[in-house]
Amino acid sequence: MTKKLWGGRFQKSAEEWVDEFGASISFDQELVFEDIEGSIAHVTMLGETGILTKEEMDQIKSGLEVLKKKAEAGEIEYATSLEDIHLNLEKALIDSIGPVGGKLHTGRSRNDQVATDMHLYLKKQVKEIIGLISQFQSVLVEKADQHKETIAPGYTHLQRAQPISFGHHLMTYFWMLQRDKERYQEALKRIDVSPLGAGALAGTTFPIDRKRSAELLGFSAVYQNSMDAVSDRDFILEFLSASSILMMHMSRFAEEIILWSSQEFRFVEMDDTFSTGSSIMPQKKNPDMAELIRGKTGRVYGNLFSLLTILKGIPLAYNKDMQEDKEGMFDTVHTVLGSLKIFSGMVDTMTVNEARMKDAVQNDFSNATELADYLAAKGIPFREAHEITGKLVFTCIQKGCFLLDLSLEELKEASSVIEEDIYGVLSPYEAVKRRKSLGGTGFDQVENQINAAKELLK
Amino acid sequence: MTKKLWGGRFQKSAEEWVDEFGASISFDQELVFEDIEGSIAHVTMLGETGILTKEEMDQIKSGLEVLKKKAEAGEIEYATSLEDIHLNLEKALIDSIGPVGGKLHTGRSRNDQVATDMHLYLKKQVKEIIGLISQFQSVLVEKADQHKETIAPGYTHLQRAQPISFGHHLMTYFWMLQRDKERYQEALKRIDVSPLGAGALAGTTFPIDRKRSAELLGFSAVYQNSMDAVSDRDFILEFLSASSILMMHMSRFAEEIILWSSQEFRFVEMDDTFSTGSSIMPQKKNPDMAELIRGKTGRVYGNLFSLLTILKGIPLAYNKDMQEDKEGMFDTVHTVLGSLKIFSGMVDTMTVNEARMKDAVQNDFSNATELADYLAAKGIPFREAHEITGKLVFTCIQKGCFLLDLSLEELKEASSVIEEDIYGVLSPYEAVKRRKSLGGTGFDQVENQINAAKELLK
Amino acid sequence: MTKKLWGGRFQKSAEEWVDEFGASISFDQELVFEDIEGSIAHVTMLGETGILTKEEMDQIKSGLEVLKKKAEAGEIEYATSLEDIHLNLEKALIDSIGPVGGKLHTGRSRNDQVATDMHLYLKKQVKEIIGLISQFQSVLVEKADQHKETIAPGYTHLQRAQPISFGHHLMTYFWMLQRDKERYQEALKRIDVSPLGAGALAGTTFPIDRKRSAELLGFSAVYQNSMDAVSDRDFILEFLSASSILMMHMSRFAEEIILWSSQEFRFVEMDDTFSTGSSIMPQKKNPDMAELIRGKTGRVYGNLFSLLTILKGIPLAYNKDMQEDKEGMFDTVHTVLGSLKIFSGMVDTMTVNEARMKDAVQNDFSNATELADYLAAKGIPFREAHEITGKLVFTCIQKGCFLLDLSLEELKEASSVIEEDIYGVLSPYEAVKRRKSLGGTGFDQVENQINAAKELLK
Amino acid sequence: MTKKLWGGRFQKSAEEWVDEFGASISFDQELVFEDIEGSIAHVTMLGETGILTKEEMDQIKSGLEVLKKKAEAGEIEYATSLEDIHLNLEKALIDSIGPVGGKLHTGRSRNDQVATDMHLYLKKQVKEIIGLISQFQSVLVEKADQHKETIAPGYTHLQRAQPISFGHHLMTYFWMLQRDKERYQEALKRIDVSPLGAGALAGTTFPIDRKRSAELLGFSAVYQNSMDAVSDRDFILEFLSASSILMMHMSRFAEEIILWSSQEFRFVEMDDTFSTGSSIMPQKKNPDMAELIRGKTGRVYGNLFSLLTILKGIPLAYNKDMQEDKEGMFDTVHTVLGSLKIFSGMVDTMTVNEARMKDAVQNDFSNATELADYLAAKGIPFREAHEITGKLVFTCIQKGCFLLDLSLEELKEASSVIEEDIYGVLSPYEAVKRRKSLGGTGFDQVENQINAAKELLK
Repeated sequence: MTKKLWGGRFQKSAEEWVDEFGASISFDQELVFEDIEGSIAHVTMLGETGILTKEEMDQIKSGLEVLKKKAEAGEIEYATSLEDIHLNLEKALIDSIGPVGGKLHTGRSRNDQVATDMHLYLKKQVKEIIGLISQFQSVLVEKADQHKETIAPGYTHLQRAQPISFGHHLMTYFWMLQRDKERYQEALKRIDVSPLGAGALAGTTFPIDRKRSAELLGFSAVYQNSMDAVSDRDFILEFLSASSILMMHMSRFAEEIILWSSQEFRFVEMDDTFSTGSSIMPQKKNPDMAELIRGKTGRVYGNLFSLLTILKGIPLAYNKDMQEDKEGMFDTVHTVLGSLKIFSGMVDTMTVNEARMKDAVQNDFSNATELADYLAAKGIPFREAHEITGKLVFTCIQKGCFLLDLSLEELKEASSVIEEDIYGVLSPYEAVKRRKSLGGTGFDQVENQINAAKELLK
Repeated sequence: MTKKLWGGRFQKSAEEWVDEFGASISFDQELVFEDIEGSIAHVTMLGETGILTKEEMDQIKSGLEVLKKKAEAGEIEYATSLEDIHLNLEKALIDSIGPVGGKLHTGRSRNDQVATDMHLYLKKQVKEIIGLISQFQSVLVEKADQHKETIAPGYTHLQRAQPISFGHHLMTYFWMLQRDKERYQEALKRIDVSPLGAGALAGTTFPIDRKRSAELLGFSAVYQNSMDAVSDRDFILEFLSASSILMMHMSRFAEEIILWSSQEFRFVEMDDTFSTGSSIMPQKKNPDMAELIRGKTGRVYGNLFSLLTILKGIPLAYNKDMQEDKEGMFDTVHTVLGSLKIFSGMVDTMTVNEARMKDAVQNDFSNATELADYLAAKGIPFREAHEITGKLVFTCIQKGCFLLDLSLEELKEASSVIEEDIYGVLSPYEAVKRRKSLGGTGFDQVENQINAAKELLK
Repeated sequence: MTKKLWGGRFQKSAEEWVDEFGASISFDQELVFEDIEGSIAHVTMLGETGILTKEEMDQIKSGLEVLKKKAEAGEIEYATSLEDIHLNLEKALIDSIGPVGGKLHTGRSRNDQVATDMHLYLKKQVKEIIGLISQFQSVLVEKADQHKETIAPGYTHLQRAQPISFGHHLMTYFWMLQRDKERYQEALKRIDVSPLGAGALAGTTFPIDRKRSAELLGFSAVYQNSMDAVSDRDFILEFLSASSILMMHMSRFAEEIILWSSQEFRFVEMDDTFSTGSSIMPQKKNPDMAELIRGKTGRVYGNLFSLLTILKGIPLAYNKDMQEDKEGMFDTVHTVLGSLKIFSGMVDTMTVNEARMKDAVQNDFSNATELADYLAAKGIPFREAHEITGKLVFTCIQKGCFLLDLSLEELKEASSVIEEDIYGVLSPYEAVKRRKSLGGTGFDQVENQINAAKELLK
Repeated sequence: MTKKLWGGRFQKSAEEWVDEFGASISFDQELVFEDIEGSIAHVTMLGETGILTKEEMDQIKSGLEVLKKKAEAGEIEYATSLEDIHLNLEKALIDSIGPVGGKLHTGRSRNDQVATDMHLYLKKQVKEIIGLISQFQSVLVEKADQHKETIAPGYTHLQRAQPISFGHHLMTYFWMLQRDKERYQEALKRIDVSPLGAGALAGTTFPIDRKRSAELLGFSAVYQNSMDAVSDRDFILEFLSASSILMMHMSRFAEEIILWSSQEFRFVEMDDTFSTGSSIMPQKKNPDMAELIRGKTGRVYGNLFSLLTILKGIPLAYNKDMQEDKEGMFDTVHTVLGSLKIFSGMVDTMTVNEARMKDAVQNDFSNATELADYLAAKGIPFREAHEITGKLVFTCIQKGCFLLDLSLEELKEASSVIEEDIYGVLSPYEAVKRRKSLGGTGFDQVENQINAAKELLK
């Protein structure tokens, strides 16, 4: 096996299988561009501060630029015996430009180097995610706009509760996503901080300029404490927490799409692109993508709990356990990006079956609240109004009809305050329209929401 | 059993044991003050908007004030048959002021009511937590200030790596807590939002003024979407995520305190107040509080995972599953408050054994990096410098001595660039002092950190 | 504060608030009977082996019997300053019978004592759980028996896939529960082991007879290693794992009951006992118990994750972190017992709407597989048969009809092998009946399953 | 893109990026051999029962054997457009032997097929894991045998508690592993069950012989219910639970090895093969493998919680969410196999520093229990004995000595029952030897344990 770079002390060569177990190159190669970018900034700073000569700096930078091109062309070969992306690239650099390449690591340790790579990586990916959230929100706003006046059953306990605007329902997800975006943006503050120059744990004796390398990398701030810089993984945990909440939101939306796609609901139809068939049942059109995203929620939760477990109870500063921080981060990035992209497309292309929804609200008791509110507005204490309504619903069930089917006499029998105007009150359309309280499902309110949302997306 | 308030439709009375399983009064009574406070604001708004008459408003408010006094005196008796805090209080109100009490629920549902209670509760508790974090940070800054120049071994992989300032080590936790505080503060933005008036899910037909009731309750904003208002539990999840990360930090500090308290390390001694003895081994002085807090990390992680699971895949808007959101929230609040309080006291009163730490760094190889850096500064490529140092360490191990014990000849044999000044370089105190890079362990840098920290705590 | 029992070394009295944070008496009093039972066995053994005199043994046993009676009457007062159930009871014993009570603790430590209590507790509770599972299974078998020939839609991806026997569907849960029972039974093997006599960690110098005390407590085995005996919490983890899987099963069943109770499905109606109404919508009949149990799944998962976290990375033998093992265990016991009881009752009393289910299978394409199988049986390669069927389904969708509505000509156009007998083949009842493969939904197979199940329940 | 196999109904071709998101071929190719094996058994049964002709059977079997060889040679090319391993292999079969290949899927669905593959896979891997556990146990027994009489400090709360036999300490892990093995063996019962022939969910109309195909595959039993067969993932959850507990055990052992390898403890030294150095600190010898395994605990916990989340609340029978069951299973298999292998090697090759351990027990108060027990044996109530001992320990601390350093006069002053023989009693070696209670650390007991262990490993 390749001689270990770190060297002189060890008398035995490590077995290859231990190498493989301990190596991270199989996954941390995802950081190749960040690692090169970080090295370029580091060596530039080393040159500028005179720690390396200008010639050394130029030589190393050229070598790194060559490596970058090779990486873009997919031409770098990684060796497990070189453990990780850092040692692989350093070896490749030295092979290419000679021993001067060894000076790149001056005033730096793998501990701050890998942290830098991850901060750079996550910053880029979180920005990408934020962009996709906005795109998904735009799809929702547009769809909600189309369905402002589409009347649909509103559910609690999966029981029809009150008629609502379908646009209002869709906008709920807009606001969830808005909070998701806020959380990612806030997490960015702590992602966008440079650990570079913290060394192994204690800083370095070289007169490095950490602000300069941070600036070169586009970081907004630097860690104030070197031990914190190398041992902190909060920024990944925050990303995983924000992602878990986002996936939870998507799992709820996915559940609804699955319900709405069932033969029993038939409120929406997914575009063929986002459905699949069955190998054995030709009639099936499965909302596969929604199910898959609902399932992937578990994956992201798992990644969060992995990292929480890994970090629990480990002392300062760096410990090898922390190598396990990467795969869950990468996996979550890919899962979230993919889920957002798929979900946007799925909602964008779904067909809403307005007739089915309308039909649904006509044939149920979701206007019962209207009756109770009507009674309350006529001065009957709310609890009593509720009880009267309950009895009328029960009467209907026994007769096999709905509230609008009762005669005025029957209604008056239950409460003498009921008048002819009750029939207008009980219409689902009117019921929705009347819910004018701020944030309510009334059409004007939904319009307001949509306008506010558009403003936020500008 | 007591007749259910909701009433008329049900033909059978529910069995008591189902009641007990479904009831939340055993735990949601923790919300008693928030529930009363929310009701007072709601009825005030109902009166101001003319939905209730001024007399009704006054009657109900007086009744609520009486309830509040009874609650403060611990005189309210809760009945399981009345399910939850809301129905219990409503019943008590009606018992006290008569049927007019039933009008309190006009334009409100239990769905927005309970959400309001939880927002109020969590806002208050999170502010309390933020205060305790600041207090803990003050303790840390003070302790770090005392130990700016206390030399201690710095570890990676629990192996002595480089000598550090013990104050620097302590300040690492300051910065962790600073991020914790930021996260709680950011979560507060989304906690400090009023769901009141969202109704069951769709808003209400009553001309309520949601901004007014929010203002009365001190909320900074209102939910823009009624379905979101009643189905959102992000604010609890964020609290649980922030708390999980905080507990993770404390578990790391606890681990260190446990290590440092062991006979092997003996770097610190916990005050008797924060230790306990053994029922069978009289010599034991166990760092019980640190262990307990380390253990409680699991509790908070569990609470986070519970709620993430509960919310996964449930459709809009309210579902009974969501009743399970409370106990984990309460438990986490108590755990975090208690842990912060205990930990502050524990750190504040601990005795630092400076002599043991100093002794430790004299008798190990944690100055090896100094030698490598010395060689690199003399122009030897870093990897080669590292290898030379490795060989000298190995020589020492074979001879049973440390680097400072080698003669200049022996050192020169390994590398001719080594001169007499190496002995100063290898001193732990000098090694720490020289790490002047921003955020490094050098005394000036630690001083800067402490000053910055004091500024943040102002 | 009460002087600590452990004694002489400590110079300061611990603050009350630290006491409270560290004390477990608020929850471990749930172990009061197990603790007394364990002490009775221990002192009996001490007397039998001559470590205590017969008089001492008798005095202590009498004292313990008195304590037991007081505990049954709820007359023991617990003090936080006495930390836990063990010290509280020991103090009560000494108060009652004098200093001889102090001899009870000979050859025992709190570490093995608390482990003994938990083993005893969990053994009893797991047996109770196993009994409730069997009861639930009986309910399922009876219900399945009634609905052996009730035709219902079978779903994959929540899309109607193939008609099935509703009894077959219900029996799926029988088998899940059967595995749950097996897991609990297997866990019992490792629960039913006595740690008593392991001391603090190393055993004891007293000539105790561990097998005898185990026998007195009804344990089947004793731990072979004293350090394992006090540090092992596998038995709780296994219980929590088995319970998590059980709750997962119930969450799936709960989800189905919620779906089936919706206006869209209306396949079942829950008995009023297991439903609740709405404070604002009088028509609602919410499947609250099913939702609550679905939600409680998160609670049990959380408890599992808590304990896994607590135990991660802690060294041998006992650490104070382990005090956190109890609340999650108690909570899970109560949750599982309650959920099983409620779920049995809910299924037992639910009304199955056979007409709705039958209606459902008549008006969909869930007989499409029959057609594909029919074609395959006539020698057409399966993939081709599948494609032909797909096309016919598509034709129907365009015409707004179902497969049984197509004429023989239309069918033959798609494939010439189709004959008149296809109409029988496409009937849902026949489709179910024909699935005679072992474990299939064919009526004979369901009958077999039910018989096998009854045999298992004997 | 390649035309979907399922066919005729879909009017649009799915976008490639949706395909990629939904496809599982990138990971389920790990099941290639199980899938072929399952197909061979299935087609053999189809031939034997006359569902296919002998010729068809032979043709298909030959085709499958060719595929198997290609798979062994790594020559199969997988296409994302063909979704999963099943469709990829079916396509390859048809390409190779023509349309008759399409008959392989007769009486089978992907739902039972994939379940079969996973049962086969996990059965094989769990057996492998059990083998590695036994190997690790053998290493432990051997090491314990060597160190039966090596005296080491025993810890509770990471405080030295009582001297123990180091062999006794090591044997603790033997018993943990023994329980792990039992759990895997019990899980095997439920893994070793054939779902093949359950079809999509309802069984099949073809006269298949499920017992025969199960027999051909070496399964011990068949699922009794077709819906259970395709929707059950308990067997994976059990595997993940058992693995989580195993990893927890290893995390505890890893923690100890990390502690023992520190400069402060120096109880053991890891072989170079299992350690690594630092890129910046040449003197470091990090117990990397132990840390990495401690970290990987989080990974396995995460996989367990992913699957628990995925399965929570999904209705019967198969849902696409369940595709997410595989990667966590594969990852856990690799993690557990690797961790066991590495840990065995690490323990096997570690050097135990007996002198350091011996030295440790001489210079502490871990013999205090001996004194307390001595007093108790002389008739002093245990609590009083404990208090006397505590005072003597305190005296020593003030004088800067240990118990053995006190004169008989000083001892007698504390309690007149103390005699000359106390000095023998206080010797650590004697203290260990005297702990003869069953499972105690006394040498005879450790000997017994080792013999019992060897018996179990036979």
